Amino acid sequence: MIEKSYKDLPTGNRHLKEDRISGEDIYDGIFLHMKRDQVTLPDGNEAIREYLVHPGAVAILAVLDDGRVLLERQYRYPIDKTCIEIPAGKLEVGEDRLFCAKRELEEETGYSAKKWSFIRQIHPVISYSTEFIDIYLAEGLTSGKSHLDTEEFLDVFAAPLEQLIEWVERGEITDVKTTIAVYWLDRYRRGLVIPQSIE
Amino acid sequence: MIEKSYKDLPTGNRHLKEDRISGEDIYDGIFLHMKRDQVTLPDGNEAIREYLVHPGAVAILAVLDDGRVLLERQYRYPIDKTCIEIPAGKLEVGEDRLFCAKRELEEETGYSAKKWSFIRQIHPVISYSTEFIDIYLAEGLTSGKSHLDTEEFLDVFAAPLEQLIEWVERGEITDVKTTIAVYWLDRYRRGLVIPQSIE
Repeated sequence: MIEKSYKDLPTGNRHLKEDRISGEDIYDGIFLHMKRDQVTLPDGNEAIREYLVHPGAVAILAVLDDGRVLLERQYRYPIDKTCIEIPAGKLEVGEDRLFCAKRELEEETGYSAKKWSFIRQIHPVISYSTEFIDIYLAEGLTSGKSHLDTEEFLDVFAAPLEQLIEWVERGEITDVKTTIAVYWLDRYRRGLVIPQSIE
Repeated sequence: MIEKSYKDLPTGNRHLKEDRISGEDIYDGIFLHMKRDQVTLPDGNEAIREYLVHPGAVAILAVLDDGRVLLERQYRYPIDKTCIEIPAGKLEVGEDRLFCAKRELEEETGYSAKKWSFIRQIHPVISYSTEFIDIYLAEGLTSGKSHLDTEEFLDVFAAPLEQLIEWVERGEITDVKTTIAVYWLDRYRRGLVIPQSIE
């Protein structure tokens, strides 16, 4: 059997889609909010879907004038690991996404950027969270003073792309938003992709 | 200010680490299990950490002899989107990871592979889930019959790497494990990375 091509896929998603029948709030915590919905499957049967409701987040690939990338080292409790990451943060209620990106970059690193572009939206947890992450490119950086939240502890530093690629390939960087941003930057430097200019 | 280099970072993570004081089970659902822990912050203050306990997962980058990649199209309820993804699945209790990769590939697509290699472990949700995904490369594929779970509905198909890269860059593929596997395969084809051979 030769597996069928993407060109031969059924059109539409009627044969895949699940429809909500009812739902309930399971847990309303400080950070996490869980829902449990009853859904209809494509064959008419019913199933339960448990998931987290997340406001969405932004991540910032901030590139210094010397070409190095701004990074953070932060302890992540659920996986018991100190992670190397690009700056990121959750959207506040009703907050504009670009505004949030500017706020998070400044709060966490102290930097502000002259030029902002949009790279892409990613979905880190498609099976159990509504979370999306919008990744921005920030260039023309000017340093200032960071304003960390009281519960935030992190190292801010910079590293060249070559070092980042090595950390990704060696398995030292395992965070997905950072991995994708690193691979994207490599393609950007090679002239293969262009971000959407915003301002 | 020139941002400090990664070479100047403090050694160790004592100034970043959080330590568990106590914890409780918040929700024990069909798929999701939530915990809430009390932790000590690096400055001695205390904070709450809510997170999901996940068994971990595997994902399979399965490459056909003609070079195309095996894919699935599946409706993902939390984000209300039909996603293009590489095959993947959760580990069962005590299950060997490679065994799980073989099982998921066969169940979802019907294919088995002669050659297995390990690409890398990623962490999709470092802020609120213990989940990891081990990504494998499967080559030397032979087709068979798929055995989907009763609640699984998906299109199985194949597409060349060039098409996958286009879907990633256009924002059609937003799933992180698939995005990372696509970027990795591009680097593999260009001879820049080698996976760890297993069998």
